[in-house]
Amino acid sequence: MNNFHYNVPTEIFFGKGAIENLNQIAHYGKRVLLVCGKDSIKKMGLYDEVVRILEQLDMDFFELSGVDPNPRIESVRQGSVLCKKHGVDVVLAVGGGSVIDCAKVVAAAALYEGDAWELVLDPKMIVDALPVVSVLTLAATGSEMNGSAVITNFETREKIGAYSTLLKPKFSIMDPVYTFTVSRAMTAAGVADIMSHTLENYFTPVKGAYVQARFCESLLKTCIHYGPIVIEDLSNYEARANLMWAGTLAINGICSLGQQTGWSVHPLQHQLGAYYDITHGVGLAILTPPWMRYVLSDETVGKFVEFGVNVWGLNPDGDPYDIANRAIDKTEAFFMSLDLPMTLSEVGIDDQYLEEMAKNCEFRTLKGYVPLTYRDSMAIYEAVL
Amino acid sequence: MNNFHYNVPTEIFFGKGAIENLNQIAHYGKRVLLVCGKDSIKKMGLYDEVVRILEQLDMDFFELSGVDPNPRIESVRQGSVLCKKHGVDVVLAVGGGSVIDCAKVVAAAALYEGDAWELVLDPKMIVDALPVVSVLTLAATGSEMNGSAVITNFETREKIGAYSTLLKPKFSIMDPVYTFTVSRAMTAAGVADIMSHTLENYFTPVKGAYVQARFCESLLKTCIHYGPIVIEDLSNYEARANLMWAGTLAINGICSLGQQTGWSVHPLQHQLGAYYDITHGVGLAILTPPWMRYVLSDETVGKFVEFGVNVWGLNPDGDPYDIANRAIDKTEAFFMSLDLPMTLSEVGIDDQYLEEMAKNCEFRTLKGYVPLTYRDSMAIYEAVL
Repeated sequence: MNNFHYNVPTEIFFGKGAIENLNQIAHYGKRVLLVCGKDSIKKMGLYDEVVRILEQLDMDFFELSGVDPNPRIESVRQGSVLCKKHGVDVVLAVGGGSVIDCAKVVAAAALYEGDAWELVLDPKMIVDALPVVSVLTLAATGSEMNGSAVITNFETREKIGAYSTLLKPKFSIMDPVYTFTVSRAMTAAGVADIMSHTLENYFTPVKGAYVQARFCESLLKTCIHYGPIVIEDLSNYEARANLMWAGTLAINGICSLGQQTGWSVHPLQHQLGAYYDITHGVGLAILTPPWMRYVLSDETVGKFVEFGVNVWGLNPDGDPYDIANRAIDKTEAFFMSLDLPMTLSEVGIDDQYLEEMAKNCEFRTLKGYVPLTYRDSMAIYEAVL
Repeated sequence: MNNFHYNVPTEIFFGKGAIENLNQIAHYGKRVLLVCGKDSIKKMGLYDEVVRILEQLDMDFFELSGVDPNPRIESVRQGSVLCKKHGVDVVLAVGGGSVIDCAKVVAAAALYEGDAWELVLDPKMIVDALPVVSVLTLAATGSEMNGSAVITNFETREKIGAYSTLLKPKFSIMDPVYTFTVSRAMTAAGVADIMSHTLENYFTPVKGAYVQARFCESLLKTCIHYGPIVIEDLSNYEARANLMWAGTLAINGICSLGQQTGWSVHPLQHQLGAYYDITHGVGLAILTPPWMRYVLSDETVGKFVEFGVNVWGLNPDGDPYDIANRAIDKTEAFFMSLDLPMTLSEVGIDDQYLEEMAKNCEFRTLKGYVPLTYRDSMAIYEAVL
């Protein structure tokens, strides 16, 4: 186990009716920037509820709405202008990971003189940020309890994850009921996203982080148990609650501490996101099985056996490669059972930019579980064209 | 899954050499009360290292040493007098759970006019506390990352756990190397303590907290995997590291959130501690198997099967009572394999105070997994006389 530093002061208010705790936002000032996406929070009545609470608290609020999935640097710039203009004290994100990610960088850009994209490219330049509070409506990214934010610049075709401890939300409201209206397809993509975060932490060359490996398996089993339940019954509270909390735990440090390594599938998928604006979790689901098959080797087969036995309940006796391959097949079959696309062509991606994307991600995957060169990335993309 | 509120701002610096981060204590003031136990931290050189760092930081420090296992209210009173007399800014605990627990209540009592025991009896009266920092030297209580403190009053024969969010350490230093010198017997007691915390969270009547149940199983498997390794090789870093981190996670909320219930074995053991001053983990190891056997019923057998299958790897096919009983037998055999005592007589306890203790703990166990009356507690004590 490697040394680690755990520092996640974010408070979580979890469960039905947790929105009543939003009044804690008053500790952070009087002037709020409300960041949200398109119409979904209005349809479910959450927007009105939030406005009612802010009004009761006699807070002034300004609005950055219409934040896209794969949130764009343009939205961030717009939000930071609003903060500066209105002297905003606290940024309130109401939505999924994209909205929260956008709000985080807005909070930093509000106190920065230069262009917000500079902070994404070099997050060390984030030396101060407005406090961020979030109300989560989608189980997927885990942004509600960490310091990460992924922002896309379609002009430069870059989708980049920035991290700063200053971006961690002060508190997050997590009411599983808010995720009842998430569509079947987006729910499945969220499950794939949670599993991918967990797998990126699970497949590590670091030895002896036993607790963390078992925790990763716990989250994978949670997704495998509740994924099929939730897509048949979108309003199943127990399933929604477990998936929502698993989404947070997959990426708040608990599963990566002491065994952290560079990620592999995310950099590959970020290229797809930057070129094609596809749903993040869908791209991860497509790329995970071919990545697994590609990195399976004498060095990694042991870890795949561990995965097959502990997560998929495979019999540990037998040929290790056989167990490993069956574990990968089961992972692929699981994604398919959630009706997730399994090829790039299904999401409208052909070979036009493959070489460019493979080149772009080379330098980002060097430190992954198995280092991937340009050729490796190409092979993984081509395996699922 | 029940609603929950997670709020643990404690920072953790984990791993070999983590003591270098102790200089962060300077953020909390200039005057330190150093709380420690008997000689062990001096023998391993940790005392000198801490003093060196405090001197380098030019901090004034005062000392409360000789804190006992089962820390006494007298030590707390003594510490609070020192804080008041010297205008202490921050309380630094260097030791195991007993030292940290003592330091926490000292930190609260330092800002309280009445007697410290009043705060233990009614922790709601803790409205302010000095900041607490800890350097952990024993994997067991998890006190390094929560707001709990257990203090004993031998005068009134009470051992009571107090909780306040104000008692959470600001940061904790966790270097597994500091636990290398913990004796074989105390290490085994620590493993039993971690398992007992986890089991108290695992056996809950709350349904549908799937993630938390899997996390509990992860920690139990960690103890079962590394317990036998560490008692044969006390300086095994990997084992010490995993057990140390498991000890924290067993009781920092991650495993109990959303499924919290009253505890059962701890109140029974706190009576033994208050009357006989035995090692906490030893008492828990003795009482866990008879408690399990006693509460096994048609209502609980399903949970015991889950425990047997997921933790002990038992075959799920077969008679549920048979699986449950085998799981309990395996738990008992595991404690025995660590050379932990399995009867009260082995630790010098006879039937003299049994009735008194059973009466005392009645009101404390009402909300446990299975409510226990006086008669029930008596039966459990008598089963292991």
